[in-house]
Amino acid sequence: MALKNKKSDLAEWYPEIIRESGLADYSIISGCMVIKPHGYAIWEKIQVWLDKEFKKTGHKNAYFPMFIPESLLKKEAEHFQGFVPEVAWIEQKEEEKKSGERYALRPTSETIICDSFSKWIRSWRDLPVLINQWCNVVRWETKVTRLFLRTREFLWQEGHTAHATKEDADKEVFQMLDVYKKMSEDLLAVPVLFGAKSESEKFPGALLTTCIEGLMPDGRALQMGTSHNLGQHFAKPYNIKFVDKDEKEKFVWTTSWGVSTRLLGALIMAHGDDKGLILPPKIAPIQVVIVPILFEDTKENVLKEAEKVKTALEKACIEVHLDTRDEYTPGWKFNEWEIKGIPLRVEIGPKDLEKGQITLVRRDTGEKKQVKPDDVKSVLKTLDDIQSNLLEKARKAQEENIKEVKTKEDFKKQIENRKMVFAQWCESKNCEEKIKEETTATSRVIPFDQKPTTGKCVYCGQPSEKRAYFAKAY
Amino acid sequence: MALKNKKSDLAEWYPEIIRESGLADYSIISGCMVIKPHGYAIWEKIQVWLDKEFKKTGHKNAYFPMFIPESLLKKEAEHFQGFVPEVAWIEQKEEEKKSGERYALRPTSETIICDSFSKWIRSWRDLPVLINQWCNVVRWETKVTRLFLRTREFLWQEGHTAHATKEDADKEVFQMLDVYKKMSEDLLAVPVLFGAKSESEKFPGALLTTCIEGLMPDGRALQMGTSHNLGQHFAKPYNIKFVDKDEKEKFVWTTSWGVSTRLLGALIMAHGDDKGLILPPKIAPIQVVIVPILFEDTKENVLKEAEKVKTALEKACIEVHLDTRDEYTPGWKFNEWEIKGIPLRVEIGPKDLEKGQITLVRRDTGEKKQVKPDDVKSVLKTLDDIQSNLLEKARKAQEENIKEVKTKEDFKKQIENRKMVFAQWCESKNCEEKIKEETTATSRVIPFDQKPTTGKCVYCGQPSEKRAYFAKAY
Repeated sequence: MALKNKKSDLAEWYPEIIRESGLADYSIISGCMVIKPHGYAIWEKIQVWLDKEFKKTGHKNAYFPMFIPESLLKKEAEHFQGFVPEVAWIEQKEEEKKSGERYALRPTSETIICDSFSKWIRSWRDLPVLINQWCNVVRWETKVTRLFLRTREFLWQEGHTAHATKEDADKEVFQMLDVYKKMSEDLLAVPVLFGAKSESEKFPGALLTTCIEGLMPDGRALQMGTSHNLGQHFAKPYNIKFVDKDEKEKFVWTTSWGVSTRLLGALIMAHGDDKGLILPPKIAPIQVVIVPILFEDTKENVLKEAEKVKTALEKACIEVHLDTRDEYTPGWKFNEWEIKGIPLRVEIGPKDLEKGQITLVRRDTGEKKQVKPDDVKSVLKTLDDIQSNLLEKARKAQEENIKEVKTKEDFKKQIENRKMVFAQWCESKNCEEKIKEETTATSRVIPFDQKPTTGKCVYCGQPSEKRAYFAKAY
Repeated sequence: MALKNKKSDLAEWYPEIIRESGLADYSIISGCMVIKPHGYAIWEKIQVWLDKEFKKTGHKNAYFPMFIPESLLKKEAEHFQGFVPEVAWIEQKEEEKKSGERYALRPTSETIICDSFSKWIRSWRDLPVLINQWCNVVRWETKVTRLFLRTREFLWQEGHTAHATKEDADKEVFQMLDVYKKMSEDLLAVPVLFGAKSESEKFPGALLTTCIEGLMPDGRALQMGTSHNLGQHFAKPYNIKFVDKDEKEKFVWTTSWGVSTRLLGALIMAHGDDKGLILPPKIAPIQVVIVPILFEDTKENVLKEAEKVKTALEKACIEVHLDTRDEYTPGWKFNEWEIKGIPLRVEIGPKDLEKGQITLVRRDTGEKKQVKPDDVKSVLKTLDDIQSNLLEKARKAQEENIKEVKTKEDFKKQIENRKMVFAQWCESKNCEEKIKEETTATSRVIPFDQKPTTGKCVYCGQPSEKRAYFAKAY
């Protein structure tokens, strides 16, 4: 089967690759997806990696109801306004209509968790409260569905914390942003830009939104994770107060941060090619697939050798699958595991057996190499090489897709050319609106710790102190 | 704080212990609960244990939409009838009213998963399909809420599989029932009865429902897990067909099986006492808590020793928490960790330091014992003893609460006395209805592999071939 061309037609390549590799599928319910075993196994690896980091940094998991009463959702006005168009509501049963309380399905859980925080927190001794939740969320999108990127229900984790001071909350926000950055680069091999969001792009109700942002091969940016300092914007309406060491009653400072199954979208687009998915070894559910080349007379010996190689690799903590299916040819299997993106294939045939070797085939470069059957070190080294090669390649692609611009004309031209631009910007809401209207691009990231620059906004010419990244966005 | 008396008032003791130990709390939404970190950590341990077993037996995790179109839900009539009273529906948006499709929130996922199976399965090569899903489900209960036992939303896992033959499906059903039994007895230290459900108690749409059933200290039974052979009841309306090796098109045989956060209810009731929760070491998020006895002048040395003990225990893979909080007294801490059910407390004070010892205090028996600070073996042995003692105690309590009865009068008397009864039964629906009406008890389990007995039904006098367990149920 010939797959679509990634470079010329990412928008068609993307859903095809997802279906053909068995990551996910559209569902009978409009706007929803089924995450199939291969896709879910990748999500599980992300979960395991993050959960360990969350716990290492003192967070605990909990679970809050998916239902949020309308009155509770409305308490922080900016937050409610931001989410209400996408909220799904539960039909009231006859007997509930009297009480008049409508229930929403959580689009995010700040409100319901703040309600619990207001009951849990009394004293400085109770702080910080560091909670994480793994769950599904619902945003009733009306725009076109994109597997992993835009569906009405998706899976995520949402961290929610409460602190005694703004400084503590800030520290938390940046700590979790760092965790996300590390996860994306070390685990997914997807390089990210990171920094703050502009006023119009920040989370409804946040004081500060920080983010990691990926740049896809078509020059469109993908918001991959956010970490917000919510200030006292939630503590006040939800009445989360504590008695401090000085015996004064104060409002807490809250944060929230999350990443979702959207990460799989970035992973797919960053590394895949026209033959299918390419998975970095650290995130691949199967790191090495062994395909034995079976003929009637040598079958037994080849399988015995394949089992031996499998055991040796497993001892080295490599996740191996030995494909012994009789009903498919080796060629069919090569193709299947390539589409699924398994980083390394080991071929063992009668000739290999004779020569006392196995053949390694890299998914990322197609390179073939013969090694001794017990040479586990070479396999480990090759997996490492694949991981770093994928990050390196993605980094180069990202760099090539970012253009620094000095004029409005160049800004427009580069956006039209499917590039991300980096430019001096005034940070005003009006200017951003105009940019969006005229180019469909938005500000994606304002990097932290910029050397103070003075200049003029590339778009409106007003005085500007910072530079920002702009692109069309997913 | 004096806790309620477990023996005389389980119904009041139960929610109090849950709140005081920090397992869970009622939520602002009627019928829902917040699972707090201590409770969620127990659920995570159950998840880890089960997930490993599921994968070992060839199952893969996936995720299906929470929304189920009404037309899909209706396809298997018996199933729909069984669930429709408890279904929560999504309010239709204006533009959706035209299409007329209403969406339910999953009460269970047979229907939506069968829809996918019908697309995934074509040939005998595709079978078996072995899927599991960890998720939330919604049943809009109108009966009184009980934390972990009856809430409108709860967390569970649901396994769904498709097989070529009835035999394969049966094998799967019993295999998963065995996994559940082992989990309950080996991990939770809760002994269970297991067998089949009667016609009126089986899952809507099932050919055969098997279950593990716990018996609580008040003589009421708790259904802790079920495993169903769904026959071809779903394959036919959902059109899940495959071409078999003989080239004939056949319908598959499906199964489903699940356990939920309800397991925590059994755990709490089986082991707790008037001082709080008692957790078997294998399921305790913290297995050993070290409480140092701190005085100004010896503080530094005591803490140093406590750290040393902690490190030694961690090396032996014991989950340890060292409670160094300055703002609470040792007595306050003892009490807190007792309420939370931590199986073993290690006390280290200046006197212990002088004598070169630490003090172990068992949560289950209150027994104290001095051992050398580096005697990790004694700690491991004590944890093992606690685990087996709790199972043993629970088994005795279960045995004492089951009465074999030969007459209708005795049946009624024992049920009134808060016992479970074991009796010859005719298995008829009419008879079960009458029993329920007159005693409020229902049949809980019909054991497998009974020695053929011929006799008369204890209740209606009709001929009977089997014996069954009856009790009031949660």
